[in-house]
Amino acid sequence: MKNPSLLILAGDGIGPEVMAEVRRIIDWYGANRAMAFDVFEDLVGGAAYDAHGTPLTDDTMAKAQSVDAVLLGAVGGPKYDDLDFSIKPERGLLRLRKEMDLFSNLRPAQCFDALADFSSLKRDIVAGLDIMIVRELTSGVYFGEPRGIFQEGNERVGINTQRYTTSEIIRVARSAFELARRRDSRVCSMEKANVMESGVLWREEVQKLRDAEYPDIELTHMYADAGAMQLCRWPKQFDVIVTDNLFGDILSDTAAMLTGSLGMLPSASLGAPMASGMPKALYEPVHGSAPDIAGQGKANPIACILSFAMALRYSFDQGEEADRLEQAVERALGNGARTPDLMGEEGGTPLTTSGMGDAILAEL
Amino acid sequence: MKNPSLLILAGDGIGPEVMAEVRRIIDWYGANRAMAFDVFEDLVGGAAYDAHGTPLTDDTMAKAQSVDAVLLGAVGGPKYDDLDFSIKPERGLLRLRKEMDLFSNLRPAQCFDALADFSSLKRDIVAGLDIMIVRELTSGVYFGEPRGIFQEGNERVGINTQRYTTSEIIRVARSAFELARRRDSRVCSMEKANVMESGVLWREEVQKLRDAEYPDIELTHMYADAGAMQLCRWPKQFDVIVTDNLFGDILSDTAAMLTGSLGMLPSASLGAPMASGMPKALYEPVHGSAPDIAGQGKANPIACILSFAMALRYSFDQGEEADRLEQAVERALGNGARTPDLMGEEGGTPLTTSGMGDAILAEL
Ligand SMILES: CC(C)[C@H](C(=O)O)[C@@H](O)C(=O)O
Ligand SMILES: CC(C)[C@H](C(=O)O)[C@@H](O)C(=O)O
Repeated sequence: MKNPSLLILAGDGIGPEVMAEVRRIIDWYGANRAMAFDVFEDLVGGAAYDAHGTPLTDDTMAKAQSVDAVLLGAVGGPKYDDLDFSIKPERGLLRLRKEMDLFSNLRPAQCFDALADFSSLKRDIVAGLDIMIVRELTSGVYFGEPRGIFQEGNERVGINTQRYTTSEIIRVARSAFELARRRDSRVCSMEKANVMESGVLWREEVQKLRDAEYPDIELTHMYADAGAMQLCRWPKQFDVIVTDNLFGDILSDTAAMLTGSLGMLPSASLGAPMASGMPKALYEPVHGSAPDIAGQGKANPIACILSFAMALRYSFDQGEEADRLEQAVERALGNGARTPDLMGEEGGTPLTTSGMGDAILAEL
Repeated sequence: MKNPSLLILAGDGIGPEVMAEVRRIIDWYGANRAMAFDVFEDLVGGAAYDAHGTPLTDDTMAKAQSVDAVLLGAVGGPKYDDLDFSIKPERGLLRLRKEMDLFSNLRPAQCFDALADFSSLKRDIVAGLDIMIVRELTSGVYFGEPRGIFQEGNERVGINTQRYTTSEIIRVARSAFELARRRDSRVCSMEKANVMESGVLWREEVQKLRDAEYPDIELTHMYADAGAMQLCRWPKQFDVIVTDNLFGDILSDTAAMLTGSLGMLPSASLGAPMASGMPKALYEPVHGSAPDIAGQGKANPIACILSFAMALRYSFDQGEEADRLEQAVERALGNGARTPDLMGEEGGTPLTTSGMGDAILAEL
């Protein structure tokens, strides 16, 4: 039998450091759980631009299409701030999302017990928090045409287009309802239907799908501004949130920050099933490339490691192995393992990026 | 000499109740400070729809154009959820903003000392917080064309257009820089220039204006998702934030909720100077129509009263009278005056909407 295949795109900033720890975890699974992966590596973002003058080569794109799952570190950095829009590091990531058609972005916002005091929110508001944000990832204002900067008389005009079709809305809503069935069966859909017609369509289609196929799911609707407020006020009211690409970008970052666990949060971006039955998939931490601490062994590898756990669960149907890895992370934290971002008043053992990798491997 | 004129549009839900307390404050200024206003009243939102089948009549629109300032309560409610998009209560408010060309929406996010424990954030993160969000209010995805829901083959497509011109960006940025000069001289501009060309234009134009005319202002740029995170993590890092219509909607609501003072926050929407030299202006609380508590005497009138204080400051050049009113509110709170939304563990005197009006009048 062929081994499952992984493409690692470590990217920029702290990407390579945190991904190095994931490599060790992957090797551990090969050596100890008879789960060998064929691992390929390549460049994305600024790293790809430095080597090839483009944030993602066609060759890398083709590799991403051919493997069972892609693991991505992070892209971007101040070094690339002045690059033209079309070759910015981010375009590499956006091309992967679009061409792999990864329409459903799963972003769990979870508060780890050992870290509840890290949140800027009061402990009782976030302790035990476990919500899932499902963000549409391949459409909306990120990709709509027309777009660009145009000259009109003496003025320049910047244009982007928010555009959603029935089928784009339905497929991401379906993935949210399916997830909710395995959780608390509650979905809250967020848009600005009071101001935007695309939001009206979003609301109608989500409601229709619920009524036709998911009567067991409790569906509510909230305007995105009220949703942002409610996330800050009492996030535990939510189970699954489904929203569009742009609102999802902001709301999921808000939710992630609230947990106090930003360096800990993974994400999965899933597309349609491939011939193998597995969905097209890319896994990446929610945090960015953190150029300010890159190369210093200070980065927290947990978000990236937990992204691999999501790969085990959603791509390779290894829920138990995913649990094993997640529990190892929790035990390491419970024993006081701390990268600098996690050092608070109650102390703990200060560790480097690879020290955290050691601590998690020791628990596996 | 002619009295300054005010148009009161109390609107829906708790709007009429909170506005009734503002009326009493206005009367107090007439009786005690020789500041008589000519006050007109009219309908907006659902209330206008119920009476006239439209959320804002042309006649009301003309009145709004002719007065020195408009005071608005709140619009919307579940009763109107199924109305067609074009006659929803919100369209009345949006028409006022657009036709009065109120491009600069000032939303202070302030944490009142007496209420610091009300925030879901830890006390030290919000105590003393005082930031100002300047939101562009007449353009962007709220008003861009094309827009609507269209049939394309078997699919429906929802479309909205994000659109900003050089001059639209410059005029709102200018108002942010001017405000910053009277504060801590720092402006942070937020967009998604890594994903949207309209954000690239926004960033470039704001920077150019700063370099050409406001070298004394410290200008930084942040992606809106990172901005949402930073608002939750450490809001005191900001002085003035300037952003577009849609990001401003979400970020200002987030900031408002963080202060724990949602029922307390006013806003001013300002346009170009009129013949009188005063800017076109509309003042309204940040909170909504709160239909769940409407008509029960439970609503907190402070946000609406402080909106009138903003009118004194920005429309009528009565900064000292605005200070007087704001201080009366602070003293009332300091003495323990509390509407139900402000009742916490430390107790205080439970008051109705008009009881709070009494408490503030007593301090004036
Ligand atoms: C890096 C950037 C293009 C990206 C986005 O805006 O989607 C990031 O913020 C994210 O949330 O994954
Ligand atoms: C009521 C609604 C149209 C409005 C908006 O989206 O601008 C409100 O949320 C606000 O922030 O003033």
